[in-house]
Amino acid sequence: MANTKGPLTGTVAAEPEPIALDFAATALLIIDMQRDFMEPGGFGETLGNDVSQLARAVKPIAAVLEAARDIGMLVVHKAGHDIIPELYPLDNEVVIDKPGKGAFYATELGDVLQQYGIENLLVCGVTTEVCVNTTVREANDRGYRCVVLADGCASYFPEFHEMGLKMIKAQGGIFGWVSDSAAVLRAISPETSKSAVAGASR
Amino acid sequence: MANTKGPLTGTVAAEPEPIALDFAATALLIIDMQRDFMEPGGFGETLGNDVSQLARAVKPIAAVLEAARDIGMLVVHKAGHDIIPELYPLDNEVVIDKPGKGAFYATELGDVLQQYGIENLLVCGVTTEVCVNTTVREANDRGYRCVVLADGCASYFPEFHEMGLKMIKAQGGIFGWVSDSAAVLRAISPETSKSAVAGASR
Repeated sequence: MANTKGPLTGTVAAEPEPIALDFAATALLIIDMQRDFMEPGGFGETLGNDVSQLARAVKPIAAVLEAARDIGMLVVHKAGHDIIPELYPLDNEVVIDKPGKGAFYATELGDVLQQYGIENLLVCGVTTEVCVNTTVREANDRGYRCVVLADGCASYFPEFHEMGLKMIKAQGGIFGWVSDSAAVLRAISPETSKSAVAGASR
Repeated sequence: MANTKGPLTGTVAAEPEPIALDFAATALLIIDMQRDFMEPGGFGETLGNDVSQLARAVKPIAAVLEAARDIGMLVVHKAGHDIIPELYPLDNEVVIDKPGKGAFYATELGDVLQQYGIENLLVCGVTTEVCVNTTVREANDRGYRCVVLADGCASYFPEFHEMGLKMIKAQGGIFGWVSDSAAVLRAISPETSKSAVAGASR
């Protein structure tokens, strides 16, 4: 990985406990931030969902995405060509088109992560209890350590958002860790994070 | 499948809506009903969990297991040799040893189900939000229709049990259907279910 600036390692404040990450072995995984789920008139809204519930995740993800790009972290987008403009993939980033709700099954994600030597995933996107939770469960069974960014995830249903996160960190972190964008920014760029996290706190 | 008695098809009362099942293409999947999770002094209790929360699922599962065996339905146990005596596998039933929380990843389950022409899964076991939910999500991505038996599942945490079921049937059944043992017994054995369901209602 091209690590152009920032520390190679950092400790992210998280629950059930802080987690030390080697950023060269860490990927940022952004799930389903696609226009069809996020925008009025899209598929999510036609199902009767309140798409405004999802908008809150955009700024925190954008802040972490910028920091990840700055240090050359591997960035993986799961969604295809329909990603919202604010988080649109760069040409050198990985885009996974997925047939189902999990990002691993029947996709090349596992191979890509292995190729890059990835051991840890910073996970964000929508929705918390559906595609984010399914992917974290898949990643956990495959041996990856997942840190889910609470303010970088969202659900059409606030109670599912809350419980989806709670299920991940329960019983000593049975599926992984829960953190937020500010904590990740502090770990990646301790000296610049104070200004970067405006609007990105929980 | 040897269908010795009972109807070949039936409609199971469920949420978000009733589901018609071809029982010859349906398997009963019993997840992690192992002594280590269920009994005092086992692994579940050493993690600080209240194992008495899980006991309530045993009788409903036993009733459905008996009915499934009666009609020759494929029965799959996920747990290994440590299954509790009340639900112990018969020699002709499939036992999947799993490395992780999902029953599909890195196991022969998918191959077995395909070999038997299975399209639908009646899912029960523990815990609702961990291994049951993970397996249902895997099954959904693989195209299986899952009917989760609410009273045949349990969690150390009642709120996770409730929300785990709610997440499955939300948005028109985004991961599957939620039913209970009495409804499945009615669909399998309409004429005998009245006596069989004693103690197995929600």
